[in-house]
Amino acid sequence: MTTPASYTPQCLTLRHLLAQLQLPIIIGVSGDSGSGKTTYSNGIRRLLGTDIVKSIEMDGYHREDREQRQRSGRLPLDPEANHLDLLAHHLLELKQGRPVEVPIYNHATGKFDPPVLFAPAPIIIVEGLHALYPQFQPLLDFSIYVDPDRDVKWKWKRDRDVNLRGHDVSALMAEMLQRQAAYKRWIDFQKTNATVVIKLHQTQIEQFGRYEFSGEIPPGSLQVEMMLEPAPVPLPSLPLPFDLAAMLGSKQAPFLLSAVPSIYWGREVITIHIDGLLSPQTVAQLERYIVDFTGIPVEQAIPKQDYERVSSVEFAQLLIAWRFLEQVNNLLQELMASGVIEP
Amino acid sequence: MTTPASYTPQCLTLRHLLAQLQLPIIIGVSGDSGSGKTTYSNGIRRLLGTDIVKSIEMDGYHREDREQRQRSGRLPLDPEANHLDLLAHHLLELKQGRPVEVPIYNHATGKFDPPVLFAPAPIIIVEGLHALYPQFQPLLDFSIYVDPDRDVKWKWKRDRDVNLRGHDVSALMAEMLQRQAAYKRWIDFQKTNATVVIKLHQTQIEQFGRYEFSGEIPPGSLQVEMMLEPAPVPLPSLPLPFDLAAMLGSKQAPFLLSAVPSIYWGREVITIHIDGLLSPQTVAQLERYIVDFTGIPVEQAIPKQDYERVSSVEFAQLLIAWRFLEQVNNLLQELMASGVIEP
Repeated sequence: MTTPASYTPQCLTLRHLLAQLQLPIIIGVSGDSGSGKTTYSNGIRRLLGTDIVKSIEMDGYHREDREQRQRSGRLPLDPEANHLDLLAHHLLELKQGRPVEVPIYNHATGKFDPPVLFAPAPIIIVEGLHALYPQFQPLLDFSIYVDPDRDVKWKWKRDRDVNLRGHDVSALMAEMLQRQAAYKRWIDFQKTNATVVIKLHQTQIEQFGRYEFSGEIPPGSLQVEMMLEPAPVPLPSLPLPFDLAAMLGSKQAPFLLSAVPSIYWGREVITIHIDGLLSPQTVAQLERYIVDFTGIPVEQAIPKQDYERVSSVEFAQLLIAWRFLEQVNNLLQELMASGVIEP
Repeated sequence: MTTPASYTPQCLTLRHLLAQLQLPIIIGVSGDSGSGKTTYSNGIRRLLGTDIVKSIEMDGYHREDREQRQRSGRLPLDPEANHLDLLAHHLLELKQGRPVEVPIYNHATGKFDPPVLFAPAPIIIVEGLHALYPQFQPLLDFSIYVDPDRDVKWKWKRDRDVNLRGHDVSALMAEMLQRQAAYKRWIDFQKTNATVVIKLHQTQIEQFGRYEFSGEIPPGSLQVEMMLEPAPVPLPSLPLPFDLAAMLGSKQAPFLLSAVPSIYWGREVITIHIDGLLSPQTVAQLERYIVDFTGIPVEQAIPKQDYERVSSVEFAQLLIAWRFLEQVNNLLQELMASGVIEP
């Protein structure tokens, strides 16, 4: 790994540099509704601080409210059912440092609330069904596509709508099938452009035990598979605080990590698989490394959780945040070189 | 992970403690002939130093030399074709600190050389087809069974005997088939008792790339699968010096590591899979941690190799050596507690 020539500890308090940014860095996050998009952008939000990171929910850009949609039968998955042109305009304005009026969809009422004045922030996350559409691509500095397997997505939906809210199963299945076709037509293709694609499978860790698996993993555990564009300039070093001695002990939690170079839709990527559970010490230490790097006080960054083990999803969140920091660092180096910001 | 109460940096120069040992620690290493048994005991030999570790080759205990075997048609795989009783006697003598006369089979001549006087050493490795036979079990402090898949074993054999030595393919195949049945009958079962079972598969790392695998791995690369009995008292800590930032870069070598608790032949084990390649920095650092622990000068322990990447086999070798050190440390703690050796 090469260390960038301009790398010095000073220039690595990212928050300090980011705070000087007049023109925002924009992240697009796409995927089906209910696919857990926020989970993955939350890592970035949490590790950089909510004062530096602001979000735009694309649902505000729907053309129709719930009542209108029920009459027209149009799905919000259809790009034509959204003011994508308006969003493109807004992103362009923000990218040039001008505030915009962001429309707001109220999920509780199913109606639009009055628009909200949105001023540029150092980092803006745009989340929604069409966030990686081609017209937005030139404005995005980083993009994430979240892609749970159908069985995972349907299980979440059933757990919520049938088990919790008591909806009818067959009606739900019919709706899901209709949505699925529209999803494949209008949403799914965006993954071909994302900096990071996150696939979620039901855990497959049991296959890696010989004869009988005897580990314990919480129900609903996921295998995360990520396709990441390699960083243009990798950051110096991020040690994995993983204890091999513990791995050889009797209390090892089941765990898998792999990284394999691949071609994904014609692009060179690293495919990473994460399955099972990590010790909280490992993940806390990893967060600490990242936090040292960003310059955010640890107390703010690491949530007080009473977990005994940390899931593949939380580990993936940290890896994605780190990959984003690599991108940000690269951008900031360029801006410093051209004198836009000062070390 | 619990740190043993008696753990102090001083007591961890293992070599110092081992040198005091009058009664040897015995390691059994079994598996088919040509399965690469020495590869795995070499890690232990190399990391502890050849002055402390001595080996017994079980081939010396064959009843018949090559010519006699050709007449009788008896396979050395048959336990009856070996002086196992004599070996058991020898191990008992050594275990009590008395020297023995070890018979020597000369692979070049196919005949027996004169026996050699073998004095007890702190660590004795017994390598051979029947090294984990039940009569030896009470005398073994640690045991390794090496179990390459048939296709891996046959490929090695073909590469050597047909491609290099120009033997006849069909005669070789017939011999291999006959051997295979005998192997299954007399050798294979020993794995049920081993502290570490090492299975070797052809690499499966390509499966972990999405769409097209684009990594590079040397031909003949192996996936190592190990079933390890958990350490009774794990050693304090062995960090995996693995750089996640490098993993997100464009030059990542394909790599997989998993650890999964399982039941293997009724025993609680950790099943570990290692596939692909590691950076030499990672493995060198790992060796350095181990060497700090054993008290052997680094220069001796780390061979000067011109490798660019390190294979799963070399990584496995280090893990097995570490697992053995855990066992040794535990034994030494007990001996110190009973005053047999001094800190």
